[in-house]
Amino acid sequence: MNKNITDVKGFKCWGAHTGVKSMKRDLAIIYSEVPCVAAATYTLNKVVAEPLKLTKKHLLNRRAQVLICNAGNANACTGKQGMRGAVAMAKTAAKMLNLPVEDVIIASTGLIGEPFPTEDIVGGIKENIPKLTSRGEAGSFVANAILTTDTFAKEGFVNLTLDKKDVSMAGIAKGSGMIHPNMGTMLAFIVSDVNIEGTLLDETVRECVRDSFNLITIDGDTSTNDMAAVMCNGMAGNDKIDSKDHPSYQPFKEKLLELMLHLAKLIVSDGEGASKFIQYTVKNARNEKTARKLVRAISSSILVKTAMFGRDPNWGRIICACGNAGVHFNYKKADLFIGDPNNQVKVLEKGKPQPYDRNFIKKLLREAHIHVVLDLHSGDAEVIGYGSDLTTDYVLFNSVYTT
Amino acid sequence: MNKNITDVKGFKCWGAHTGVKSMKRDLAIIYSEVPCVAAATYTLNKVVAEPLKLTKKHLLNRRAQVLICNAGNANACTGKQGMRGAVAMAKTAAKMLNLPVEDVIIASTGLIGEPFPTEDIVGGIKENIPKLTSRGEAGSFVANAILTTDTFAKEGFVNLTLDKKDVSMAGIAKGSGMIHPNMGTMLAFIVSDVNIEGTLLDETVRECVRDSFNLITIDGDTSTNDMAAVMCNGMAGNDKIDSKDHPSYQPFKEKLLELMLHLAKLIVSDGEGASKFIQYTVKNARNEKTARKLVRAISSSILVKTAMFGRDPNWGRIICACGNAGVHFNYKKADLFIGDPNNQVKVLEKGKPQPYDRNFIKKLLREAHIHVVLDLHSGDAEVIGYGSDLTTDYVLFNSVYTT
Repeated sequence: MNKNITDVKGFKCWGAHTGVKSMKRDLAIIYSEVPCVAAATYTLNKVVAEPLKLTKKHLLNRRAQVLICNAGNANACTGKQGMRGAVAMAKTAAKMLNLPVEDVIIASTGLIGEPFPTEDIVGGIKENIPKLTSRGEAGSFVANAILTTDTFAKEGFVNLTLDKKDVSMAGIAKGSGMIHPNMGTMLAFIVSDVNIEGTLLDETVRECVRDSFNLITIDGDTSTNDMAAVMCNGMAGNDKIDSKDHPSYQPFKEKLLELMLHLAKLIVSDGEGASKFIQYTVKNARNEKTARKLVRAISSSILVKTAMFGRDPNWGRIICACGNAGVHFNYKKADLFIGDPNNQVKVLEKGKPQPYDRNFIKKLLREAHIHVVLDLHSGDAEVIGYGSDLTTDYVLFNSVYTT
Repeated sequence: MNKNITDVKGFKCWGAHTGVKSMKRDLAIIYSEVPCVAAATYTLNKVVAEPLKLTKKHLLNRRAQVLICNAGNANACTGKQGMRGAVAMAKTAAKMLNLPVEDVIIASTGLIGEPFPTEDIVGGIKENIPKLTSRGEAGSFVANAILTTDTFAKEGFVNLTLDKKDVSMAGIAKGSGMIHPNMGTMLAFIVSDVNIEGTLLDETVRECVRDSFNLITIDGDTSTNDMAAVMCNGMAGNDKIDSKDHPSYQPFKEKLLELMLHLAKLIVSDGEGASKFIQYTVKNARNEKTARKLVRAISSSILVKTAMFGRDPNWGRIICACGNAGVHFNYKKADLFIGDPNNQVKVLEKGKPQPYDRNFIKKLLREAHIHVVLDLHSGDAEVIGYGSDLTTDYVLFNSVYTT
């Protein structure tokens, strides 16, 4: 079996069914035997769900020991009733585990604006905290308990050796609708036994989220509940990573980014109704900001996304999307390639359409994984982003979500 | 028959088939017997089609006498070959009509990045300029000659009396895909016999475009070719409108806005694959900029658009879209209404969900014309925008456009 959260030293978890969702698990609990340093990034939507407001406050001290997430009700636009529910969740867990309430991270996902079913969820917490375990199956239960419209659970595990100590990291995520860059992302929870200083972890999480979850897009909307949280309990016993110059820092950061990127790609693969996974590379841009904005503009354009669904090498839409990105863009310098790296077709050279075999390129676009590479010949910045196509299934699915 | 461009004093036009499009008319010519003051707004896309670059230069003197537009080839991303084509169009028309080349407005619409078929189009201009006429049917021909994926021609006519003189305005437009606010808009050509000063016309056109074409959205992309041009030949003989304080200014501006709004709504009605026309009102906002950004965010959200297609009163998506608008937004002050003004249902009051009859609201959402009203109770600014739903037909249609 693949390793999961339960294989990280000191962590236990459980995923249970409280009844908020009719059939599936809807309550996730992740617990560390000892206090962790913790950091999180949050949605940039101006409408912020109640649990995120609470978690932001709790994480001011960069410390946490347990994370509780319910699925089925987002506890967003629920006002005081919702905030009371989030507080009740935290208090219940803190009391049962004998922790300060500030050491509890709360998250929610599901429908916006429904009254929050505090009683069911608090009851579920009471019933399930005693079930916390490091048995392997609990890792799968907790990964499933945070899902909503996802079609599969998203899990990842990486490890490395620091100071001859084995250091592990495991994570779970949920995605599906409303995935977009430039946000605190959808839900992703990562735990590690690495020994690291809190403010450094905070900064590192921000940078890794920027280079992973913030480079994916499904439908261009940012939800009220998006959050990525990382908890590190130090039980691996490595020499504490206390600065970017520490010899363990880069190896740790690379692994964290690898794990986040793995989860981010799983989210794109499971985008609502998506039939294709598309990797967009913008290279040799004048600077990173320009490359990021272009990746985002192309991957978010619904005209590009529908063309991908239709296996249509419509480079005009890609160039047009770049022109709308709000950054400097000179198409006359741009080369554009479609296909995978071993089977690339150059469709534009210095802005000029190139002759290509239309049947061959349509064959390339039939693949489930498509590469689009835009070479700007204007500098040396490169950014890679990931997106899905826009399908008739997506529209059908999203036209009937609440009803 | 409805009045059209040929009913405006001094204007003639013609719409012809040059062969760039296989079956339909694809060349539009609008001509005034005397020189006009003229103004235009253009796409904000960084990739600007060649004809727009030329027209911008030509209109520096705010004067024009003929407008030529071809459909089927956008003359965008065509580089020097394309610019030579646009210049050839202007020179051909100028020579035949004995005008300075700067008095020619050039526009194009169609596929991006295909070599420009200069010879066909120049041949078409030569053949069809002699056919310019003020006979009524030419108005319909010219309205049809600028279309691409539109399913019907978009025309409008308004008139008013200024200084006891009859003043007329007529316009044609094309839309369909790639319609979005905050741009120089898709194609709209308006002619009038009003007597007005050039710089004042320029400013007025900008303001009216902002309050009409820039408040509509279909799919959030802005094309390389969008342009709205207005030509006024002064033949109505009214006292020249030379300032905003002139007694004729407001009546004239109101009529111009009425005509633009009429054309803008026709464009939304004919949005690719759209099944619904949705009017979004944001009222009592703290200022106009906030209201505009909120209208745009809601009407562009593909989650809101798919909900409208699915007749789903998913107010959570509307609130979430507002949170992503990048402006101050306090949902706790917001009332939200769905339905038409005579049959409104309040779904949110001060951010709190209100009980409503789900079957009744689903019936309201079955209408082809839907009203969404967001009352922010935060000031007195109001902006109304227009959008379409996102349908499975849209996706199917756009997945096979070039192929």
